[in-house]
Amino acid sequence: MKCALLIIGDELLAGRTRDLNGHWLSTYLPSIGVELCQVKTISDDESAITSSLDELYKRVDIVITSGGLGPTKDDITKNVLAKYFAKDLTFNDFSVKFIENLYSKFDREWNTQKNSYHFFPEGFTLVDNLNGYAPGLSYFEDQKLLLSAPGVPREFSSMVSNSLKELISKHFKRDDLKSFEYFSIRTKGVPEEVIFRDLCPGLWEKLSAIAKLSSLPHLLGIDLVLYFNSDQREEVIQAATKVISDSPLKDFVWQYGNLELEELIVKEAIEKNLTLGFAESCTGGLSSSKITDVAGASKVYYGSIVSYANSVKENILGVNPNTLSKYGAVSAQCAKEMAVGAQKSLGCDIAISYTGIAGPGGGSKEKPVGTVGIGWSCALEQDSEIIYHKGSRTDLKNKFSRSGLFKLLELIRQYK
Amino acid sequence: MKCALLIIGDELLAGRTRDLNGHWLSTYLPSIGVELCQVKTISDDESAITSSLDELYKRVDIVITSGGLGPTKDDITKNVLAKYFAKDLTFNDFSVKFIENLYSKFDREWNTQKNSYHFFPEGFTLVDNLNGYAPGLSYFEDQKLLLSAPGVPREFSSMVSNSLKELISKHFKRDDLKSFEYFSIRTKGVPEEVIFRDLCPGLWEKLSAIAKLSSLPHLLGIDLVLYFNSDQREEVIQAATKVISDSPLKDFVWQYGNLELEELIVKEAIEKNLTLGFAESCTGGLSSSKITDVAGASKVYYGSIVSYANSVKENILGVNPNTLSKYGAVSAQCAKEMAVGAQKSLGCDIAISYTGIAGPGGGSKEKPVGTVGIGWSCALEQDSEIIYHKGSRTDLKNKFSRSGLFKLLELIRQYK
Repeated sequence: MKCALLIIGDELLAGRTRDLNGHWLSTYLPSIGVELCQVKTISDDESAITSSLDELYKRVDIVITSGGLGPTKDDITKNVLAKYFAKDLTFNDFSVKFIENLYSKFDREWNTQKNSYHFFPEGFTLVDNLNGYAPGLSYFEDQKLLLSAPGVPREFSSMVSNSLKELISKHFKRDDLKSFEYFSIRTKGVPEEVIFRDLCPGLWEKLSAIAKLSSLPHLLGIDLVLYFNSDQREEVIQAATKVISDSPLKDFVWQYGNLELEELIVKEAIEKNLTLGFAESCTGGLSSSKITDVAGASKVYYGSIVSYANSVKENILGVNPNTLSKYGAVSAQCAKEMAVGAQKSLGCDIAISYTGIAGPGGGSKEKPVGTVGIGWSCALEQDSEIIYHKGSRTDLKNKFSRSGLFKLLELIRQYK
Repeated sequence: MKCALLIIGDELLAGRTRDLNGHWLSTYLPSIGVELCQVKTISDDESAITSSLDELYKRVDIVITSGGLGPTKDDITKNVLAKYFAKDLTFNDFSVKFIENLYSKFDREWNTQKNSYHFFPEGFTLVDNLNGYAPGLSYFEDQKLLLSAPGVPREFSSMVSNSLKELISKHFKRDDLKSFEYFSIRTKGVPEEVIFRDLCPGLWEKLSAIAKLSSLPHLLGIDLVLYFNSDQREEVIQAATKVISDSPLKDFVWQYGNLELEELIVKEAIEKNLTLGFAESCTGGLSSSKITDVAGASKVYYGSIVSYANSVKENILGVNPNTLSKYGAVSAQCAKEMAVGAQKSLGCDIAISYTGIAGPGGGSKEKPVGTVGIGWSCALEQDSEIIYHKGSRTDLKNKFSRSGLFKLLELIRQYK
């Protein structure tokens, strides 16, 4: 079962808004056994919408649209769909009641003077919106399904996950779709061309014989990713893990699995009953925010002292004022004292610290933008190192954060 | 001058990787006067690539591709382009030297055994990669320009911004393209349909007479956004601001301009010479990370105490253990004490605190997931409130964060 997403909105092409629905849909559809073949973003323009529908209807079974269902004049999706399928816009008692109910769920009153949400192209079906006021629309004709959903991410994702599986079952009579998924072999410290040309010639072919393979560069390194039907999970994981274990690549693998670095840290810290904390200057709380994105982090995570000002480094982390004046805030000495101070003041088992220059200003010849001191403090070791990265301010915050998180993972793994 | 982006990569459609190049390009092209008409994401598949090229070449002047230029077997873009334009893949002394130079910039050696980066479709031009090893490709034929760039975001953005303007000038002889931009009127507290139907009938037409208008729902409220050529900036901003100032919508506007909330906070805090800090529990450092995304934040930002564990709330923020046992960590009382403690321990002028339940676990009937206490402490006022949001864990972290940041903006504005 093949699907395409058509995202409608000038603001997405003019740099005003970032689409979130494409990525969400790409993570959702595999779980219900539907293949996302194309995502297309176009402007709020009738001819762009109709020519895209022409094109996509040729290629896929299901077209989902995102956006243009709101109450303002640039919301043209419903009208264009009516025209495209040569349907009149109409309303009836049921559609009036449907919108009334939609509003009453949010304790708001609605009447037909308020907007034209109760109008729909004849033969279309209104689709419930769990998180907003504009209803979605579905239509089935010539073995093709259309689902038109609002662009607001929370409305889009809840509407699709609440309705699509049922619509497929109803219209295509398909309840047998097999979900598919992926398995990642995540490496660090070896370039892509070295893996396949020098280190493991033939690896591409061996893994490709197991499942569809992609090689994906990532902030930390190269991920080898296998895609397969869920009912093959056991065999694929076993076979792929064996191939890697028998190859020299095994020494560069930091994870056999799909977890993000912060998810893996929380998982392994829980397993080893280790509590965690940070002292963050240049990362500004980013590492802490990533760890707390993981549900269940509270089991092992104590907190972070975001010490952007030197006074906070001194007063809360106990960094020696002489260290700051002699070596500067961005130094191995300061990084170490921050980590030691964080471990002590937070009372956690392992603390990681960050002090660096994210730019664009603040760099010097000896300490250019991209310099970061990473410190660590735990029962096993108290130390720090200076490393260098390149990129924009937000790139650097991310790269700094990953370097420290990876160090944290390594320390957790040193514990029995 | 019209442009389309063709993003090539299975991983983007299978939920493995999130594309960043589409959004970046949408923010870059307006600055050089090029209109982004379409962004299309397809899989690493020859027929998908060639049919997309057929379609896009009909509609735009410039096609940019992203991805598939690396050294592994799923990197097929170069071969498919050669076939599509009926060119042989070739190399010459110049292309060998080009790749040698590319590698030597990173202090790495390269030779023709390492990969096939020196091969290019005859008649194509190699394009420099400032941040990676795979070169880009450009080709001009029949008044259509192709630029093929790597998918890694830092390589893609630096290659496009380093080469596209020059390629347009060389091939189209166009140095007169006018940049375009947008101006936002950012509101809070009034639904979209109320603005245009009840509060300000005729507003859509009045603003549309000034420039192209979009109405965009946003976490905080509705943004009205006008798009125009940069040389009309003064008139558009003046006219739009006057229209709003004369309308009842003016009481709901929190910004005439395009800044993100955190950027506006840093700007206004600098103007008023106010220093800022946070105490964060449920947001886990997100507010701090947002503020420190803003270059120059260090002028006013002191830091955040991320107090995920109650022990940190007590020991560093000085929250009374009785408050925690009597009212719980998620309470107006605790929020206030956290803010007061953060202001004191960080030594800043205004502190905002967060303590809530981001879920998915931890909710109860009285305090469901989505409950958050926001506290504030400054010379003007020390207080707190409980508010409720809906959404997933990361949604809620974002919504909590915005609520507190908006309170921070309001407090800054109370200062003379």
